[in-house]
Amino acid sequence: MPQFLDTNDADFEPAFAALLAAKREDSPDVDDTVAAIIADVRARGDAAVIELTARFDRLELTPERLVFTPEEIAAAIETVPAAERDALELAAERIRAYHVRQMPEDASWTDPEGATLGWRWTAVSAAGLYVPGGLASYPSSVLMNAVPAKVAGVERLAIAVPTPDGKVNPLVLMAARIAGVDEIYRIGGAQAIAAMAYGTESIAPVDKITGPGNAYVAAAKRRVFGKVGIDMIAGPSEILVIAERGTDPDWIALDLMSQAEHDESAQSILITDDADFGQQVGAAVDKRLETLERRAIAGASWRDFGAVITVRDLDEAAQLSNRIAPEHLELCVADPEALADKCVHAGAIFLGQYTPEAIGDYVGGPNHVLPTARSARFSSGLSVLDFLKRTTLARMTPEALRAIGPSAERLAQSESLEAHGLSVRARLDQLNR
Amino acid sequence: MPQFLDTNDADFEPAFAALLAAKREDSPDVDDTVAAIIADVRARGDAAVIELTARFDRLELTPERLVFTPEEIAAAIETVPAAERDALELAAERIRAYHVRQMPEDASWTDPEGATLGWRWTAVSAAGLYVPGGLASYPSSVLMNAVPAKVAGVERLAIAVPTPDGKVNPLVLMAARIAGVDEIYRIGGAQAIAAMAYGTESIAPVDKITGPGNAYVAAAKRRVFGKVGIDMIAGPSEILVIAERGTDPDWIALDLMSQAEHDESAQSILITDDADFGQQVGAAVDKRLETLERRAIAGASWRDFGAVITVRDLDEAAQLSNRIAPEHLELCVADPEALADKCVHAGAIFLGQYTPEAIGDYVGGPNHVLPTARSARFSSGLSVLDFLKRTTLARMTPEALRAIGPSAERLAQSESLEAHGLSVRARLDQLNR
Repeated sequence: MPQFLDTNDADFEPAFAALLAAKREDSPDVDDTVAAIIADVRARGDAAVIELTARFDRLELTPERLVFTPEEIAAAIETVPAAERDALELAAERIRAYHVRQMPEDASWTDPEGATLGWRWTAVSAAGLYVPGGLASYPSSVLMNAVPAKVAGVERLAIAVPTPDGKVNPLVLMAARIAGVDEIYRIGGAQAIAAMAYGTESIAPVDKITGPGNAYVAAAKRRVFGKVGIDMIAGPSEILVIAERGTDPDWIALDLMSQAEHDESAQSILITDDADFGQQVGAAVDKRLETLERRAIAGASWRDFGAVITVRDLDEAAQLSNRIAPEHLELCVADPEALADKCVHAGAIFLGQYTPEAIGDYVGGPNHVLPTARSARFSSGLSVLDFLKRTTLARMTPEALRAIGPSAERLAQSESLEAHGLSVRARLDQLNR
Repeated sequence: MPQFLDTNDADFEPAFAALLAAKREDSPDVDDTVAAIIADVRARGDAAVIELTARFDRLELTPERLVFTPEEIAAAIETVPAAERDALELAAERIRAYHVRQMPEDASWTDPEGATLGWRWTAVSAAGLYVPGGLASYPSSVLMNAVPAKVAGVERLAIAVPTPDGKVNPLVLMAARIAGVDEIYRIGGAQAIAAMAYGTESIAPVDKITGPGNAYVAAAKRRVFGKVGIDMIAGPSEILVIAERGTDPDWIALDLMSQAEHDESAQSILITDDADFGQQVGAAVDKRLETLERRAIAGASWRDFGAVITVRDLDEAAQLSNRIAPEHLELCVADPEALADKCVHAGAIFLGQYTPEAIGDYVGGPNHVLPTARSARFSSGLSVLDFLKRTTLARMTPEALRAIGPSAERLAQSESLEAHGLSVRARLDQLNR
């Protein structure tokens, strides 16, 4: 049974605090194993990657066969039905159109003292995208990572996707081709992260690694951070729906289940100002859980982490939402924009009853890689900015240096950094000569 | 002796590669100690912080005395000479003026299908800034962290600064007041990071922690990452100067030494197209090293990690610069803008001979918290974006859902996520009724 809470109940606050604090994922401690794998790949390169792939993926490779050939990719893609191809192309086009608008502007200006200041954005040269194999090998995730990288201008974009027993999802290769990925390697796990971060004889190193993965991949990404950039370490998915009476309870039930079906650790919460409506949604969930293909997973998630919370009004709903800081926030209310203005901590907001969260997973345009586990308090979803970096620019004229140099010299002296001060003073002395 | 290299030499490539790979800092492994400190602060709150402060800082506190009172701050600030106060105020004003321009725009548009898309930036609610005590307690760093946070709109900004034996740098308090910091705690080390991340009875938790620190602070920041956001983990500072004949060799020598004097692990490199000029700069450095107050530190850095590289032309200089990806890049050449266009991986660029790097440390306007250790390949200096997060927004009309919903449904089915597909299908069925 999910929890049914009411802010009018005396024990609401401790129950809600427990819901917020629930540890939904107990990652196995694989750090020592991962450290050994990374050290092995750094020491022995291709040979280590090939041995580890034989061991974990039951696949015998050679240095030449680490990468998919164009012919292999073309042959796999031929098997994709036209309807799937068209859907992927529509998704890619919409994701591209959204992310193009995120491209930040360079800036340059001259201030009253005569200093010319500004900044310039440039793309990361090479990025690597990890794509899980097996059940969670999602072509949509390929698009959500690869399209922003290419929009940002990343020249070389590599994918690592494990192919256990040699099996690969052709839709993943199709998505990679649509997104303009340059290299696809049939490797996975910590060995793939190590190979992309440090390079091997056959795999050139990248500067940034993004994409989801299991506990080994996550631990490897944490370990190579610093040598390369990484995106966030994603936790299990979450949705918060705030709904008034008026939307079909079955729609809300399906929206809640579309998170719950991802993972037994996923969390789906409904907040409503109408206790009866909350009960109706709960009943609709129970009905759907009788027939859903993934009812075992979705049912466990709903039972262990699901909640229906009745509030006095939508202002109180917004306050609770801000404490949850949800990854996905769906607002099925009459005036979703007004409510969205009050919900300041959320990865993505879906406004109105015709915007089910699943639209955002595939074809909405915004990215579906979003901050989990309350990290929307301080972080954002994936964007072109993850594949760009900013260089600040400053140029002083002699006049500008005369105007502000003495203050720099003074502060350098106060910090006992003599050479800092002298580097300014030597120039001022010559200018004043 | 620093290295003198020439790209014409047969052994240049291995020597340059060794320079790039030099491990300049060997951080002690303090992770177990830090883990224990964090666990202690989480379990015992104020009591743990007070005990640890007595042990490490030889300072007896009470819960009430963890925070500086307004009277204590005012009394300390009274001791600051007017010249220092004026210099700090000029610096703060220039940093503020630069960072205000970084504030990103919200966006909203309606696409041809009728979907309204966009995003919204909001500030992190509470941020904590770590300020080292003792030698490296720099008021300029207070400004460089606190001003962008306040420009971003952070409501609650706390500082933690250890005060060993009760001693504090009044300029740090002055800088905090100028920047609008809300709370200043006299605590440091891993216990300060733990207190800000998890909160205690007397210290409310924050959402983001920034600022430099020693190996304990760095390890603690890594450990609390995820619970809160953190900025980069900074390594020792670096400067690359690209200079043609024509600038006073002593100016370049002082610019090189202004990095070297930070830390024995700092690195200062000169690239020039004129071997004689390189020798002149080397001689000027030797001369300055006879008298500089911090000559022991600067000399060790220059001896162990310094280099003077002679190149054929400025194009080759830009290529080497991109391999170094320096934190600070100074271009003392006739046309610095043209050269800057070719230097795509750098934290900050200082253009022309009247822009010594020290200007950027204090009063230039751009941030002095910059990516070290070649991470300018994939990351940027501190900015207002570090204190903001972006929420994506999407609203479908019935028409938009009709147009793109079927593709979402198709992709959900291909990923075996039935509820995702059904959440779209249920709405389409009603619309088509």
